[in-house]
Amino acid sequence: MTKIIENTDKGLGFVETKYFTFGNPPDELKLESGEKLSPVTLAYETYGTLNEDKSNAILILHALTGNAHVAGYHPGEKDPGWWDNMIGHGKAFDIDKYFVICSNVIGGCHGSTGPSTINPKTNRPYGLDFPLITVKDMVTAQSYLVKSLGIKKLVCVAGGSMGGMQVLQWTVSFPEMVATAIPIATSARHSPQQIAFNEVGRQAIMADSNWNDGNYYGKSAPRSGLSVARMIGHITYMSDVSMGEKFGRRVKEEHGDKKFSPDFEVEGYLQYRGDNFVKRFDANSYLYITKAIDRFDLTNGGSLEKVFKAASAVKFLVIAFKSDWLYPAYQSKEIVRACKQAQVDVSYCELNSTYGHDAFLLEVEEQEHFIKNFLRRVSDE
Amino acid sequence: MTKIIENTDKGLGFVETKYFTFGNPPDELKLESGEKLSPVTLAYETYGTLNEDKSNAILILHALTGNAHVAGYHPGEKDPGWWDNMIGHGKAFDIDKYFVICSNVIGGCHGSTGPSTINPKTNRPYGLDFPLITVKDMVTAQSYLVKSLGIKKLVCVAGGSMGGMQVLQWTVSFPEMVATAIPIATSARHSPQQIAFNEVGRQAIMADSNWNDGNYYGKSAPRSGLSVARMIGHITYMSDVSMGEKFGRRVKEEHGDKKFSPDFEVEGYLQYRGDNFVKRFDANSYLYITKAIDRFDLTNGGSLEKVFKAASAVKFLVIAFKSDWLYPAYQSKEIVRACKQAQVDVSYCELNSTYGHDAFLLEVEEQEHFIKNFLRRVSDE
Repeated sequence: MTKIIENTDKGLGFVETKYFTFGNPPDELKLESGEKLSPVTLAYETYGTLNEDKSNAILILHALTGNAHVAGYHPGEKDPGWWDNMIGHGKAFDIDKYFVICSNVIGGCHGSTGPSTINPKTNRPYGLDFPLITVKDMVTAQSYLVKSLGIKKLVCVAGGSMGGMQVLQWTVSFPEMVATAIPIATSARHSPQQIAFNEVGRQAIMADSNWNDGNYYGKSAPRSGLSVARMIGHITYMSDVSMGEKFGRRVKEEHGDKKFSPDFEVEGYLQYRGDNFVKRFDANSYLYITKAIDRFDLTNGGSLEKVFKAASAVKFLVIAFKSDWLYPAYQSKEIVRACKQAQVDVSYCELNSTYGHDAFLLEVEEQEHFIKNFLRRVSDE
Repeated sequence: MTKIIENTDKGLGFVETKYFTFGNPPDELKLESGEKLSPVTLAYETYGTLNEDKSNAILILHALTGNAHVAGYHPGEKDPGWWDNMIGHGKAFDIDKYFVICSNVIGGCHGSTGPSTINPKTNRPYGLDFPLITVKDMVTAQSYLVKSLGIKKLVCVAGGSMGGMQVLQWTVSFPEMVATAIPIATSARHSPQQIAFNEVGRQAIMADSNWNDGNYYGKSAPRSGLSVARMIGHITYMSDVSMGEKFGRRVKEEHGDKKFSPDFEVEGYLQYRGDNFVKRFDANSYLYITKAIDRFDLTNGGSLEKVFKAASAVKFLVIAFKSDWLYPAYQSKEIVRACKQAQVDVSYCELNSTYGHDAFLLEVEEQEHFIKNFLRRVSDE
């Protein structure tokens, strides 16, 4: 369990990331592609206390560029984890009741095995020798972590965006380990528009001459390309309305010294977000993870109804946001419809928010309300 | 007038682009920035016959990456002009009645003076020495062309997207020269989301090491960056629905030999469009023109109503498309509302189409119907 160094009434105080390694020969992690990964490390954090019969665990799953640090503070950092307002004492995921785990994904770059990890066969970073991974592979790896903690069944798996895809995959890959599932602002499969935005991001990275077919570790990283990819992402995370409210057509106070320096605040903001992102994210991880979510298709070419029939004991709370145009509500409704057809217990909330896709990170109060009620109802049954 | 080399019943047959040069000292074109441009060439095409009193001319204005070749065929090319289905015998803009002019914009790269033009002061291409231009400058330059043809008043100025911005600017800069205006799928000013998409495109170009601060003429052009910019554009020109209908999640028949080669048809399509675009467009022109439309603000900080009061004799037909999320209908409605407040004669059509922003190029029948009726009505009055 995470050692809570300081526990103020504001939240969780200091927390730390831990690492779980498995998959040493002959027990390599077999990937969906048929390739094997060995060893495999997952970065994770936990909050609250696992009860004696290990029946109060909730698994939180993160989005494309997220990590295991979902709540509390790391020493020396001024921002808390990415969903800190949702996880803590009395919050949506109440650590007075639940033992909350957040696991990073394989393919990532925040402590879990990914393309920037040293390949034990070459003693150099994998780069593009890292095998293609899938959302199913991410979930399979997480199942080892959960089992290693002695947990047979999770009270809940929850997450937004790519986290929601992992949630859906958990209910299909390990239905016996999941009591309830909360997929938020997500999809059972990407539309061509969603694929297109990711592909442009990948092209921007690969167009950067520093990318060098993924062999840039120890040299200059493809910062410009990754920054452009992130800027594209940021536009899709906000809504037309929320951008209008946040920036309007306000011009920057200081214009740079170049002809095409940003004029408008929105341009400066995007550049700032892009520049910040390249400090904390690996370009190859961006390629691998976006590819995994583009290929993700819960139906596997069949029907979604059939898929959920195999998960019929899981209870679902599906949440979508009206202004989210990256993962539009119709994709959540598709999940709800299939659950109903499969006679799965499903609740659906479509929340009014102007924040676009970012709403799943920002609309705390309403999500807390629905999630608490949902968890209360299903635990009473 | 354009020499129509072959006039089949299918359309206009062969047409040719012509060039109008003006602005030699001491009559340089004075730009909004205060800088002067000299000389200035505009590429343009014309179709049909100018009547004796020169009172039957219509000016068509093009979008971001368009050009003067709006209709008919150029020898050796298999595709006709970009709005060929709208301009011809008996079409929306009927060349049996009207003399149709299409003018390229300054800043462009299809025959008009722009950053790739030789700077007479240095005998080398302007590159970033080319002055920043505005939509107003584009329109001012076109006014010289129109006057040079002896035309005092245009029956109509019409165009979609950036063409619509020029239409709006014409009614404000030269209200006495415009009888009617048809701005299509456009805006009186860019929202931060529209600015953001353009800015990411610009960043992609400037991130390309071949860009070299705009000094790439005669060397390798920033093809990768420009291609990424175009791919972003293409996503915004289509709708979620039209992408779904066109591509779904169909995978490409042949997968490239690289790990991150396109899997899906939509990815292959975007790359194809990006690759094609770099053959016909100049990266610096992309920077200059997107900057011009981002800075465009018809209100100039005041009210749109006031602006249209100065154009109160012009009759407007405003057209928008329901699925256009790049230039959403609410922006057209804003124009219509301001026209009404200013007691300007305005009609509004919001057309059902799934094509997104591309609808203005593709939805011929309905546009033809409304445009013909509008032109008939105003000419009867």
